[in-house]
Amino acid sequence: MKRDQALAIVKEQITQHRYQHTLGVMETAIILAERYGADAKKAELAAIFHDYAKFRDKDEMKAIIEEQDMDPELLKYNSELWHAPVGAYLVEKEVGIKDSDIIDAIRYHTSGRPNMTLLEKIIYLADYIEPGRHFPGVEEVREMAKSNLDRALIKSIRNSIEFLMKKNQRIFPLTFHTYNDLVKKEAD
Amino acid sequence: MKRDQALAIVKEQITQHRYQHTLGVMETAIILAERYGADAKKAELAAIFHDYAKFRDKDEMKAIIEEQDMDPELLKYNSELWHAPVGAYLVEKEVGIKDSDIIDAIRYHTSGRPNMTLLEKIIYLADYIEPGRHFPGVEEVREMAKSNLDRALIKSIRNSIEFLMKKNQRIFPLTFHTYNDLVKKEAD
Repeated sequence: MKRDQALAIVKEQITQHRYQHTLGVMETAIILAERYGADAKKAELAAIFHDYAKFRDKDEMKAIIEEQDMDPELLKYNSELWHAPVGAYLVEKEVGIKDSDIIDAIRYHTSGRPNMTLLEKIIYLADYIEPGRHFPGVEEVREMAKSNLDRALIKSIRNSIEFLMKKNQRIFPLTFHTYNDLVKKEAD
Repeated sequence: MKRDQALAIVKEQITQHRYQHTLGVMETAIILAERYGADAKKAELAAIFHDYAKFRDKDEMKAIIEEQDMDPELLKYNSELWHAPVGAYLVEKEVGIKDSDIIDAIRYHTSGRPNMTLLEKIIYLADYIEPGRHFPGVEEVREMAKSNLDRALIKSIRNSIEFLMKKNQRIFPLTFHTYNDLVKKEAD
């Protein structure tokens, strides 16, 4: 699928503000793909569609999580987590993208997972550091992403966990497992 | 078992420095038990024996974890975690304490667990805030412990998770499940 065609599809699904964010994720993902040797075309498409389901109705997302036998734990946690797995499902079903590398990068762009692929790491990190992001710590992660993808990823997950704990919110278990997995592999 | 008898037993197992810490945990646990309505005698004994296995040989601890069918995940994480479940086992076997409330408070004093009992919370927190502890954030938790045991516990676990992440160490899964459990119950 061509970039313009993909962007036109996603533009109808999300707000203008989120569309600008999506363009930033796309640019960043392509740069990271070229830097770390991933498939830049797959990175482009995964980035374009990563927030495809962001503005779907919560009841619709809940129904999809139940009907498609996704992890039922999702429903016990913040609904901000739902758009990633639901998006993976809808991008395949409605847009017709079948490439499992792209679909999984969408599916795990919010939670991460142990044994993330290079493409998954790139989309997760691009979402965190794209130029439109402005929050404490983002610049440090941007700098790390220039030389060490995994260290940048660990730092971004650590920041997210700390942010949620400061707000007295729970941490989705998969996020903790992702953190542990990355730290273990860095130490090995 | 009388306090003096218990202290004499544990004194032979640990260093003088750790014995002073144990006295601090004992005093703090009794105060917390009286404040929050737990059994002060059980708190006293659990506190006295909480670090019973702290200086056991690592190979001995590893063998006990395997032979007693304890969570095999323990062996994949920092050995600092081992003395709590191994201590629970040895305090029952060698000292003869059978009370499961006391044994569980020893078992979970480092990791915590979802659905902690009042006594377990008290020993966990007393270990963290006893007067001999000096590290950033401890005074804030001491203050919280005067009015809200659960909030103090959440804060202490959060501090521990942040401390480990700063050192680029993994988080034992039971610890973040404990965090999530306590945060959820506070919100309910």
